[in-house]
Amino acid sequence: MYTIGIDLGGTNIVAAVIDEEYKFLAKAKTPTAMPRTPEEIFDDIALVCKKAVEDAGLKMSDISSIGLGTPGTVNDGEIEYANNLGFDHIPAADMIKERLGDFPVYIENDANCAALGEAYAGCGHGCGNFVAITLGTGVGSGVIVDGKLVTGVNCAGGECGHMVIVVDGEPCTCGRRGCWEAYASATALINQTKAAMEEHPESIMHELAAEEGKVSGRTAFDGMRRKDAVAVAVVDQYIKYVAAGVTNLVNALQPEILCIGGGICNEGETLLRPIRRYVEAERYSIYSVKQTQIVKAELGNDAGVIGAAILYKVK
Amino acid sequence: MYTIGIDLGGTNIVAAVIDEEYKFLAKAKTPTAMPRTPEEIFDDIALVCKKAVEDAGLKMSDISSIGLGTPGTVNDGEIEYANNLGFDHIPAADMIKERLGDFPVYIENDANCAALGEAYAGCGHGCGNFVAITLGTGVGSGVIVDGKLVTGVNCAGGECGHMVIVVDGEPCTCGRRGCWEAYASATALINQTKAAMEEHPESIMHELAAEEGKVSGRTAFDGMRRKDAVAVAVVDQYIKYVAAGVTNLVNALQPEILCIGGGICNEGETLLRPIRRYVEAERYSIYSVKQTQIVKAELGNDAGVIGAAILYKVK
Repeated sequence: MYTIGIDLGGTNIVAAVIDEEYKFLAKAKTPTAMPRTPEEIFDDIALVCKKAVEDAGLKMSDISSIGLGTPGTVNDGEIEYANNLGFDHIPAADMIKERLGDFPVYIENDANCAALGEAYAGCGHGCGNFVAITLGTGVGSGVIVDGKLVTGVNCAGGECGHMVIVVDGEPCTCGRRGCWEAYASATALINQTKAAMEEHPESIMHELAAEEGKVSGRTAFDGMRRKDAVAVAVVDQYIKYVAAGVTNLVNALQPEILCIGGGICNEGETLLRPIRRYVEAERYSIYSVKQTQIVKAELGNDAGVIGAAILYKVK
Repeated sequence: MYTIGIDLGGTNIVAAVIDEEYKFLAKAKTPTAMPRTPEEIFDDIALVCKKAVEDAGLKMSDISSIGLGTPGTVNDGEIEYANNLGFDHIPAADMIKERLGDFPVYIENDANCAALGEAYAGCGHGCGNFVAITLGTGVGSGVIVDGKLVTGVNCAGGECGHMVIVVDGEPCTCGRRGCWEAYASATALINQTKAAMEEHPESIMHELAAEEGKVSGRTAFDGMRRKDAVAVAVVDQYIKYVAAGVTNLVNALQPEILCIGGGICNEGETLLRPIRRYVEAERYSIYSVKQTQIVKAELGNDAGVIGAAILYKVK
């Protein structure tokens, strides 16, 4: 049995054909090339799907289902609203069927697809209770309970980046103040790094940023490796914020595995070891033998397209 | 089919027999009378169960399962640790079977039982995606996804009161700082009320507390009803803290219904209306037609014993 997964992003449309063991047979992509109409975008979605099927040496009749991961909120085959694609109540499942045939089509938020991909085909190794968080431009997340995505009453569940960890704190893009995302995203780390650099002209981070041409999510970590005290303080504080949200999720859900992905997770154990230490000290379940394992995401950018391709398992 | 539910509390042991429609046939109780040995407590548990069955006009052979709700952490029929009962790795299911016979016995945390009771027999009306929070001495909570309790890898899930909403904030009994419980429990409201009274000797709350003989969770609400500006500010700030955690749970889980119980919920719409207003303004899912309903718990102290009696449904 083969299925198609589609990852519809603001920059690229990726389609992949995978088998039952979550292995890629083929992958095709095309630029999203915004701004375009939904019709134009779905025409291209159909084209990359056909290309991937052809590259896999298959026919469309070999395909048993199609899954699409999209930014924004989704409801029953419709993309309700996706700001960066300019989508407002787009009947995505129908538009795919019109172009590719009468397949079972599943639509889901892209962060949820990525969580699903990691849970089944990545670091989750098929465990049923799993949380994935992504430390990128924002803080994405997906929650899996008993092998199913927690999408809630309106398919908008799993927005754990928008849990407030500092009442009346930093403004968040969502309109709240003090969201975890405003403290634990790569964007937040860059802001925290810039603020510390401004206060400390003596910090080696000025030199590192000049070399790299910008302040990035790596600047503070690189400064820490060079023993710069200001960089050490930035990283410590950032990790404390990440760990606060991770501990919140552990106390609320006690997943078997919680995985951390996104650009910042390239720091590997430098990031994970102190997070585990914080969670161990602060979790509520200190007397339990079994505890949540905190691991690094394994699939990188492929998580979303694999998750989309296996939506049929959880819908 | 009839089942027994047991609510083991620090003050009383309650047992009830209910039918398939969650109706009480009989209820019996005895003081927990701490400190006592686990053996003595389980002897009394067996006695109140037999009493409830007799009062219901039934025999033990009419009972199809027994459920026990207990404070503390639970793992596979064992009470791992319950501080206020002095329990450390107590084989609760076996101890019940030894005394009452070879019934299916289910053990679960008491806050989770209360959530289950409300979800199936109370304000949840059987909806599958449900969160219950209790604003009492602490902030208790239980999470139900797809009709099942979210207990996680170690049966310690659902501790949403111990999600930090103010990093480095007020100390919590759990050891963390800034937990939701430290801001939104009845205990926290009393502390917030006392602090405001100390700062404002002119507040009418001094008079109200003197009449009642103490500062309680009602003092600030009563002061607000008497148009006392200090009381209004205390209630506003308290409701903002409650709503921050409620919005966090809505963003993460988007339950169909979120119910609020505990002593403070006796304020009814005075409490619920402004909470709904905060959540509406701050939730992430502003474009979704379907939204979480925020309602008052219906079953009061009976939620736990009913939930214990229907554990067989979700285990």
